[in-house]
Amino acid sequence: MNKLILIKLGGSLITNKNQPESPNLSVIKKLSQEINELINDKDKFFVIGHGSGSFAHVPAKQYETKKGFINEKSPFGMGLVQDSAAKLNRIVVKHLLESEINAYSINPSSALLTKNGKIVNWYLEPLKLLLKNKMIPVVYGDVVVDENQGCAIISTEVLLNYLALNLQKEYEIEKIIYLGCTDGAWDENQKTIPVITSKSYSSLQKHFGASGGIDVTGGMDHKMSEAMEIAKVGIHVVIANGNMPHILKKILNKEYSNCTIITK
Amino acid sequence: MNKLILIKLGGSLITNKNQPESPNLSVIKKLSQEINELINDKDKFFVIGHGSGSFAHVPAKQYETKKGFINEKSPFGMGLVQDSAAKLNRIVVKHLLESEINAYSINPSSALLTKNGKIVNWYLEPLKLLLKNKMIPVVYGDVVVDENQGCAIISTEVLLNYLALNLQKEYEIEKIIYLGCTDGAWDENQKTIPVITSKSYSSLQKHFGASGGIDVTGGMDHKMSEAMEIAKVGIHVVIANGNMPHILKKILNKEYSNCTIITK
Repeated sequence: MNKLILIKLGGSLITNKNQPESPNLSVIKKLSQEINELINDKDKFFVIGHGSGSFAHVPAKQYETKKGFINEKSPFGMGLVQDSAAKLNRIVVKHLLESEINAYSINPSSALLTKNGKIVNWYLEPLKLLLKNKMIPVVYGDVVVDENQGCAIISTEVLLNYLALNLQKEYEIEKIIYLGCTDGAWDENQKTIPVITSKSYSSLQKHFGASGGIDVTGGMDHKMSEAMEIAKVGIHVVIANGNMPHILKKILNKEYSNCTIITK
Repeated sequence: MNKLILIKLGGSLITNKNQPESPNLSVIKKLSQEINELINDKDKFFVIGHGSGSFAHVPAKQYETKKGFINEKSPFGMGLVQDSAAKLNRIVVKHLLESEINAYSINPSSALLTKNGKIVNWYLEPLKLLLKNKMIPVVYGDVVVDENQGCAIISTEVLLNYLALNLQKEYEIEKIIYLGCTDGAWDENQKTIPVITSKSYSSLQKHFGASGGIDVTGGMDHKMSEAMEIAKVGIHVVIANGNMPHILKKILNKEYSNCTIITK
């Protein structure tokens, strides 16, 4: 069975979270080049997801988009959030293409429906065929249409979990990798925790606060709970520092120093 | 029953077709402002579609994207075409938002599947809910995933026809408007033909050549045949010059001077 690896490029890694709409181009370029080094392996398939960082989180906070249509300005805010998220997506995809990667955006806001913030349906046929053709679908945290509340915010972690669960028939899900700005998840002394299991999670949970800068999806706390969710079905998540050289190659070679593995 | 109007902003109108990736910002701004004047009518709902002009048509021609995956470079070309089409879409949506329109992109490449270039399915639930919430979905000519040939190109006219046919249960389709750079469709003396019917079409067909600049979807000839297709089911198409002041308001008031109406 072919192996699928899902990679998240964190919003705080690929943007400067403290300045609106400022991409971190040198990191996006570095990661694009490192992804290029992985794609020649014929048995490995990839999905890339990225966060919104200082792009969509800013209007999403201003218009409280996560809550849905709460006032007459909410639909306009929904448009602004989509625009800002898509802008960063274009920057990421442009750099992937420049690194000769067959990258192709899949915009959640065009193909996914939620009900009270939970995914009801995501039309995955295009994405499945892209993967079959060895292309690299690029998804991202986005605003989406919600059956009940008008709109909702979907985080990259939730998207990648959904994909991992729904592509299990076709692929062996090798792992989900979250690339951020820290050497994995830290304990109270800011030291990397090598492994987190459902057993150790409850005692560690208090250390995982919100991320630096604005983050409407909940920062490290949200990442950890989504990672625990998918770990339950036997898919493990690796949290690593995207600034480290050749980090993706190392993780695929199972060199996990300075990484956190979340497992059952 | 609520009325739905579908408006196409032609690629040759909103871009300079002879210079790659050059938007015609003054026209995009003018049309955004004129669309803003229409949206307060509570019973009227709108979908906007736009062409790709000097954006996606350029890589689409280079990689012969319309033919599908014809060589090993085709998947990369598919990514480039999507990127270029999406870039123009962001420019259009940005200007609509700046004119205080609740605009929201629906990317065909994320939600639509073709088989040998014909639409097999388009996941329309998000678009339908957006309309219900009085938002304005913005679609555009795009590259899409094709079940048989890997990829295909879908023109804005084909997308708008598909929407008109599939939204007939919920809306009375008032008309489809194609805005281009000419006063409607011309006869052999470059005079506007006021009305074209299926009867007169066959004798006029020879006048409708390709559009100026690169156009992989077939120019005026393609527009006319798609307009004739939808006219068959009783939905009429108005072809007009998007440079004329207040052109959309005039058409909605049934002032059709310098326009061509395509009807059954």
